[in-house]
Amino acid sequence: MAPIKVHGSAYSTATMRVIATLNEKNLDFELVPVDMRTGEHKKEPFISLNPFGQVPAFEDGDLKLYESRAITKYIANQYSDQGTDLVFRDPKEQAIESLWTEVEAHHFDTAGSKLNWELAVKPKMFGAEGDQAVIEENKVKLAKVLDVYEKRLSESNYLGGDRFSLADLHHLPTAEYLLLTSIKELFDARPRVTAWLADITSRPAWTKVIELRNQALNPPK
Amino acid sequence: MAPIKVHGSAYSTATMRVIATLNEKNLDFELVPVDMRTGEHKKEPFISLNPFGQVPAFEDGDLKLYESRAITKYIANQYSDQGTDLVFRDPKEQAIESLWTEVEAHHFDTAGSKLNWELAVKPKMFGAEGDQAVIEENKVKLAKVLDVYEKRLSESNYLGGDRFSLADLHHLPTAEYLLLTSIKELFDARPRVTAWLADITSRPAWTKVIELRNQALNPPK
Repeated sequence: MAPIKVHGSAYSTATMRVIATLNEKNLDFELVPVDMRTGEHKKEPFISLNPFGQVPAFEDGDLKLYESRAITKYIANQYSDQGTDLVFRDPKEQAIESLWTEVEAHHFDTAGSKLNWELAVKPKMFGAEGDQAVIEENKVKLAKVLDVYEKRLSESNYLGGDRFSLADLHHLPTAEYLLLTSIKELFDARPRVTAWLADITSRPAWTKVIELRNQALNPPK
Repeated sequence: MAPIKVHGSAYSTATMRVIATLNEKNLDFELVPVDMRTGEHKKEPFISLNPFGQVPAFEDGDLKLYESRAITKYIANQYSDQGTDLVFRDPKEQAIESLWTEVEAHHFDTAGSKLNWELAVKPKMFGAEGDQAVIEENKVKLAKVLDVYEKRLSESNYLGGDRFSLADLHHLPTAEYLLLTSIKELFDARPRVTAWLADITSRPAWTKVIELRNQALNPPK
């Protein structure tokens, strides 16, 4: 059988989300590099895999997918019997996991990815200063999201339920980048959020993602 | 058993998304009105149901949820054996449905809800003019999304697969409002998108949502 292919970049958050899921499932895959600095993701052949021109695109045999959160769900369901079980099957437990997956996408990541762009990508990749108004606005939003998380994590070991699931995993890439910025203070001020992040970022499946990212950011000369 | 409760507003897009799903399943529910004009959704008791202060919130017995797309998935899974089957169960079919559900949330609705705000809500509810720069930017984005849909609908009867599913249903509220604005031109210019919208907006479950919305917008004197 043809191996699973991930077309993307080892330092893109959405690609990292998919690779983390594959690692949790102990699945082999081929990372087909897409050079975002030269705009490869906006041209053929990539846009035939994803017409929206965003990494990653994904292939498993004849199945072609894009949208990182659809890919992670597919991997979790299709390979449910191997590696870490990343989803819940009882409809009510599944609903709670789904709620927190939506919160990640619509609250955490909308604020978090703007902060990551202004505080990390713009200065480090383009030598430009971040927009202070955008930073302030999204800091306030993210702080409110983290207050909700702090409360949730007083009731449950993980966001999605009593065990680690996609609802937690989806946060990893953006959270990992934000921990390298001044936003770390927002996490540090909330003990349960801090403990949760320390737990999920130390998972072996995730540390392998970071190794791959670091190689991509600092290739051997 | 206590009836299903939807705390929300019959003219809010996210509330309409949930009610459409309940109607497809022929489920009885109680709509507990939340008056957004007086900011009830930002105060207790509502924010105990959704700390993010957005309608709707949802109760089914002891299960409490928010985030409209998590609620629709719960209804579709929990009540899978009644009314319209709204999800796919084969992992590959499910993955394709999930991909288009993500496209709705991250591409269609991000552009569409900004256009709805500028072109309908601002002028009609607040007597203010829409921001032309925001309108132009999001018209370009939505046109690109609809080009992708036009191609998809040449390969498949519905976005999520060969039958109507949540991937289509999630579009209904924002699309319905946009059809009342100048954005209708963007839909009209694409024959497969036009036929798809005519099909899904004529579903009896949806026309009941519109009746309820019209009553809320124009209460009898």
